[in-house]
Amino acid sequence: MTVQVGIIMGSKSDLPIMSEAALALEELGVSYELTVVSAHRTPDKMVNYAQSARERGLKVIIAGAGGAAHLPGMVASMTSLPVIGVPIKSSNSIDGWDSVLSILQMPGGIPVATVALNGAKNAGILAASIVGAFDPVIAKNMDKFKMDLKEKVEISAKEIETKGWRTALGK
Amino acid sequence: MTVQVGIIMGSKSDLPIMSEAALALEELGVSYELTVVSAHRTPDKMVNYAQSARERGLKVIIAGAGGAAHLPGMVASMTSLPVIGVPIKSSNSIDGWDSVLSILQMPGGIPVATVALNGAKNAGILAASIVGAFDPVIAKNMDKFKMDLKEKVEISAKEIETKGWRTALGK
Amino acid sequence: MTVQVGIIMGSKSDLPIMSEAALALEELGVSYELTVVSAHRTPDKMVNYAQSARERGLKVIIAGAGGAAHLPGMVASMTSLPVIGVPIKSSNSIDGWDSVLSILQMPGGIPVATVALNGAKNAGILAASIVGAFDPVIAKNMDKFKMDLKEKVEISAKEIETKGWRTALGK
Amino acid sequence: MTVQVGIIMGSKSDLPIMSEAALALEELGVSYELTVVSAHRTPDKMVNYAQSARERGLKVIIAGAGGAAHLPGMVASMTSLPVIGVPIKSSNSIDGWDSVLSILQMPGGIPVATVALNGAKNAGILAASIVGAFDPVIAKNMDKFKMDLKEKVEISAKEIETKGWRTALGK
Amino acid sequence: MTVQVGIIMGSKSDLPIMSEAALALEELGVSYELTVVSAHRTPDKMVNYAQSARERGLKVIIAGAGGAAHLPGMVASMTSLPVIGVPIKSSNSIDGWDSVLSILQMPGGIPVATVALNGAKNAGILAASIVGAFDPVIAKNMDKFKMDLKEKVEISAKEIETKGWRTALGK
Amino acid sequence: MTVQVGIIMGSKSDLPIMSEAALALEELGVSYELTVVSAHRTPDKMVNYAQSARERGLKVIIAGAGGAAHLPGMVASMTSLPVIGVPIKSSNSIDGWDSVLSILQMPGGIPVATVALNGAKNAGILAASIVGAFDPVIAKNMDKFKMDLKEKVEISAKEIETKGWRTALGK
Amino acid sequence: MTVQVGIIMGSKSDLPIMSEAALALEELGVSYELTVVSAHRTPDKMVNYAQSARERGLKVIIAGAGGAAHLPGMVASMTSLPVIGVPIKSSNSIDGWDSVLSILQMPGGIPVATVALNGAKNAGILAASIVGAFDPVIAKNMDKFKMDLKEKVEISAKEIETKGWRTALGK
Amino acid sequence: MTVQVGIIMGSKSDLPIMSEAALALEELGVSYELTVVSAHRTPDKMVNYAQSARERGLKVIIAGAGGAAHLPGMVASMTSLPVIGVPIKSSNSIDGWDSVLSILQMPGGIPVATVALNGAKNAGILAASIVGAFDPVIAKNMDKFKMDLKEKVEISAKEIETKGWRTALGK
Repeated sequence: MTVQVGIIMGSKSDLPIMSEAALALEELGVSYELTVVSAHRTPDKMVNYAQSARERGLKVIIAGAGGAAHLPGMVASMTSLPVIGVPIKSSNSIDGWDSVLSILQMPGGIPVATVALNGAKNAGILAASIVGAFDPVIAKNMDKFKMDLKEKVEISAKEIETKGWRTALGK
Repeated sequence: MTVQVGIIMGSKSDLPIMSEAALALEELGVSYELTVVSAHRTPDKMVNYAQSARERGLKVIIAGAGGAAHLPGMVASMTSLPVIGVPIKSSNSIDGWDSVLSILQMPGGIPVATVALNGAKNAGILAASIVGAFDPVIAKNMDKFKMDLKEKVEISAKEIETKGWRTALGK
Repeated sequence: MTVQVGIIMGSKSDLPIMSEAALALEELGVSYELTVVSAHRTPDKMVNYAQSARERGLKVIIAGAGGAAHLPGMVASMTSLPVIGVPIKSSNSIDGWDSVLSILQMPGGIPVATVALNGAKNAGILAASIVGAFDPVIAKNMDKFKMDLKEKVEISAKEIETKGWRTALGK
Repeated sequence: MTVQVGIIMGSKSDLPIMSEAALALEELGVSYELTVVSAHRTPDKMVNYAQSARERGLKVIIAGAGGAAHLPGMVASMTSLPVIGVPIKSSNSIDGWDSVLSILQMPGGIPVATVALNGAKNAGILAASIVGAFDPVIAKNMDKFKMDLKEKVEISAKEIETKGWRTALGK
Repeated sequence: MTVQVGIIMGSKSDLPIMSEAALALEELGVSYELTVVSAHRTPDKMVNYAQSARERGLKVIIAGAGGAAHLPGMVASMTSLPVIGVPIKSSNSIDGWDSVLSILQMPGGIPVATVALNGAKNAGILAASIVGAFDPVIAKNMDKFKMDLKEKVEISAKEIETKGWRTALGK
Repeated sequence: MTVQVGIIMGSKSDLPIMSEAALALEELGVSYELTVVSAHRTPDKMVNYAQSARERGLKVIIAGAGGAAHLPGMVASMTSLPVIGVPIKSSNSIDGWDSVLSILQMPGGIPVATVALNGAKNAGILAASIVGAFDPVIAKNMDKFKMDLKEKVEISAKEIETKGWRTALGK
Repeated sequence: MTVQVGIIMGSKSDLPIMSEAALALEELGVSYELTVVSAHRTPDKMVNYAQSARERGLKVIIAGAGGAAHLPGMVASMTSLPVIGVPIKSSNSIDGWDSVLSILQMPGGIPVATVALNGAKNAGILAASIVGAFDPVIAKNMDKFKMDLKEKVEISAKEIETKGWRTALGK
Repeated sequence: MTVQVGIIMGSKSDLPIMSEAALALEELGVSYELTVVSAHRTPDKMVNYAQSARERGLKVIIAGAGGAAHLPGMVASMTSLPVIGVPIKSSNSIDGWDSVLSILQMPGGIPVATVALNGAKNAGILAASIVGAFDPVIAKNMDKFKMDLKEKVEISAKEIETKGWRTALGK
């Protein structure tokens, strides 16, 4: 059986951030693979990865990179699958602005579905929502996930409302 | 038969930009509907639209807005479908930065698939790639679309190479 | 008796900042309530909160959020009360710019009274000034508060002028 | 009878923008006065205006300025009334960023209720919502105003839905 | 005998930065006074300070402030003396941008001589250069100061050139 | 007799902006000279200009440039006179940010008195205030200039107050 | 004989800007070729162009692109020749910031020699300076080019100095 | 024998960053010299360095500086050799934006080959690629360097793929 989502990143140093996409997919019941593919240092591997993704059965690709981040856009140029880009605030980035703009501002014809800076968790959820648009089981998992989010807020609201904000703050 | 993609925007003044999403979907053979839903002026309609989208058969929602653009994120909070956000450089926007950041920087749990500023055409293509990930006919249209893009570049390259750039520039 | 000001925030993690609004209101003698309401995770609660605020007797709502901060604007769209927005530099924010712009740049028709980044203390003071515009007791508290601010500056000025800046710096 | 809202601006060149605040107040049934007061060129007049505002019966002051915009903050430092600041993208402004930041980022103790760049209309509405928090007639006007906003959106939505977006665009 | 330069700042918390102006003036042989004057919290004192500065014999005023920094510009509006503004990256500032823009972008007619963010040392040197333009003794001190700067660079250059950069780096 | 202020600019294309400095100096009774000196294209002339300025009797140098604007800082490095920098929004500038930052952010030791973007008029006034700090005639001109500014504001205020803002706007 | 410099751009719409590189190279006596190669639309052609450049005899590649501009960096990743990147302020760019950052901020290991926004002329001159570092004829042309720049400045300076700035401005 | 690359920086405090250029050149077999030259504190030395560089046999100059960084551009204005600029995020810089813009945005006629913020390593590699364009030995070193980059990525990819990302993260 093939996996549904491919997670790639430009450098192993992106793994602490990008692993949050994997965790989100696990929680939502979506299968995935994860590896390092560099647009600038392993361009051949990138081409192969992008061009073979559909026939290998992937439905979505999540690509994370920082600084002048070319991986998401280059992969998107070589596949018809949806590509989700995660701008990473890496050590060589100017506060993340370069990462965001070099992923978001793709030219007409080649979109990248960009999420927030360091938003790998949201990339995983977005990939699951894409799979879930066509798969009722995943959709159900999505609904449960949203209910859990809601419940957590409600619990903290109740705590503050009943105990007072000073207690909730540990003061 | 239900449509696959819902296109909404915060104001009729966004239509000149957002209609490019419709054109892209038409070219790629994906069915859609299009209307105006304002997060701030018709919040009830927004809630209804978002909460009924899946059961009405939509697979993807494209939402465009400018300035403090809350429509894409609010819709995403109320559906498990993938939501594509189009930041619009509207007349009340500070060069588009507000539109981009208020759509892109969603908190963990509620992603919006953001495209470039005024990138409605790319939003349409991205929606088609999502549908196409599960529909071989649309996928084929996507491939043809990419071939056309390539061909246009090759034609302009050939013109410049054979006639010289001065001629190509009309000088 | 009803409270005059409602303080809400998108997440319990905003409480360390937002509690400064509560402290300011206490100092100025204005009654308040405080809880967590998330635009994206508890949209129903948000709608209820906003739509019932006036009839519950609130005069002002203070809403804080970070990143793509939709809470203040969405609440403002569903009440005719003045809404004060506090942009929070949360962990998922790009240096606060997203928080500021997604609260400040509201479209024509739906204003949010925005204060400085992390300016919850000023939000409390602003809410008190609104109440004080119609309540001479609170107005008097405001005047005293301003006198205290002035006095603190005068004391530090006197210290520097009499003892010299090196002593004042502890050098 | 005294007026409820004072509208001031740093230069007559700000009048085309700032007059939108006046129009909004007229529409919402709130009385106002309007004049030019410059923080830098008529500092004495500014001091007098701010210090006498409350005893003259004003409830809210709206102050607009561009570039290094000191008028709203300086007025706020000399009155206990709520002050609404309108950042203006004047000819000497760097795309409005200076206007926004020099009004929004007030130090702790002296808030300015800042609205969007060139958002004078919203400043008028915000002032009305402050008056309306204590005046049921104005509150009713606010509700009607919101209904009108909603209706306009619904009309344009209906036009697009029934006639198609091409017709709505005049194509 | 009167002092030549007045150094003021909006808050005692600015003293660690602003004291560098004092040190520079001491090194260059220019007399000064230093105190705290807040545009927003002690506006009356600010007016007095600015309006009496020339008759008290001051030649230059150095004013430092952070965030929405109005002190330098307001002082400049009330004196014909040259005013040097020091934008301070205080705790309530958005990376210093607000401080810089609210001091630098003064409207036509009221200039502030702005130096770099946290550039109080340079403010002191600039004040000395102004005094030195009319005072040959100070001018001579300026020349010696520049020679010292040059010498320090030459010493570090010589160290690196003769010992090698690894040694100079302490490797 | 020598002139008191030297106005230089990096290119003749800066003249429309920089001539406003000349006009301000004329109005304030300060003598000046004006020419083109390029840091990058005539570095020798720049060195000569800066190093001979004091002995030629100049008291202040005003230098304007755009983009990566090195002229003001380089001149400041080679004279002990005060140097006023005018950031110009030239055709090769990114909205003026490069011009502002490359003039303002001088390293410790070499200040440039920076004025607003395109603020040549203010550069002239600032130069006059420097001369006026030591010259009672110029100081008197400065005071008159400020009175004129005030008067213009008062006239426009009176017009609006008596005729109403609609008439003042020509509506 | 082979050409020394290859000029490529992502779209024919970049030609008006990029042709300035060609003009500069012609003026400096350096041979070149010019065509359109798109990173996103003709990735195969880009790979071939980059990988064959050295053996075809090129010494320098100039690559221009706008928005999320990946062409210069991707070409640099596939050749050991120096690559000069020209950020273009194209219609889909946010004031050029995306173009600049996605070319400039390359990760360690893969540099791109970036020039100013729309700085194609400077890209041509930089390419010539690289060739000229090893070719005395081109170096001589460079020197003459610099003399011409100097002369133009001197002529405009002389015009202003002799005729006065009013005449030079055509006033 | 003369060295091929000159590395200069504005201050010894830039050495920790700039030494990475030296290390890159050593790894790639390119000879170099390294010293401190300040545009603002040792302008004479800078002029001498720039004007004598070519006759001393240098092929490329690498210049690093921070804040209002004038060294690279000023050196470029006085030599026909290619100059590589390294923007340094020094302690007096506003997040590096000043450093980047004051090096990158050179006027037409005087290019600086700018690399990423703190990108001294890439400056060394770029200098080597320039030398390598005319020297097959260096070119070979460049190719080997690129192969090493590729291999490192492949090793980390293999580790993640075989051991799983949790193990690779050390979880």
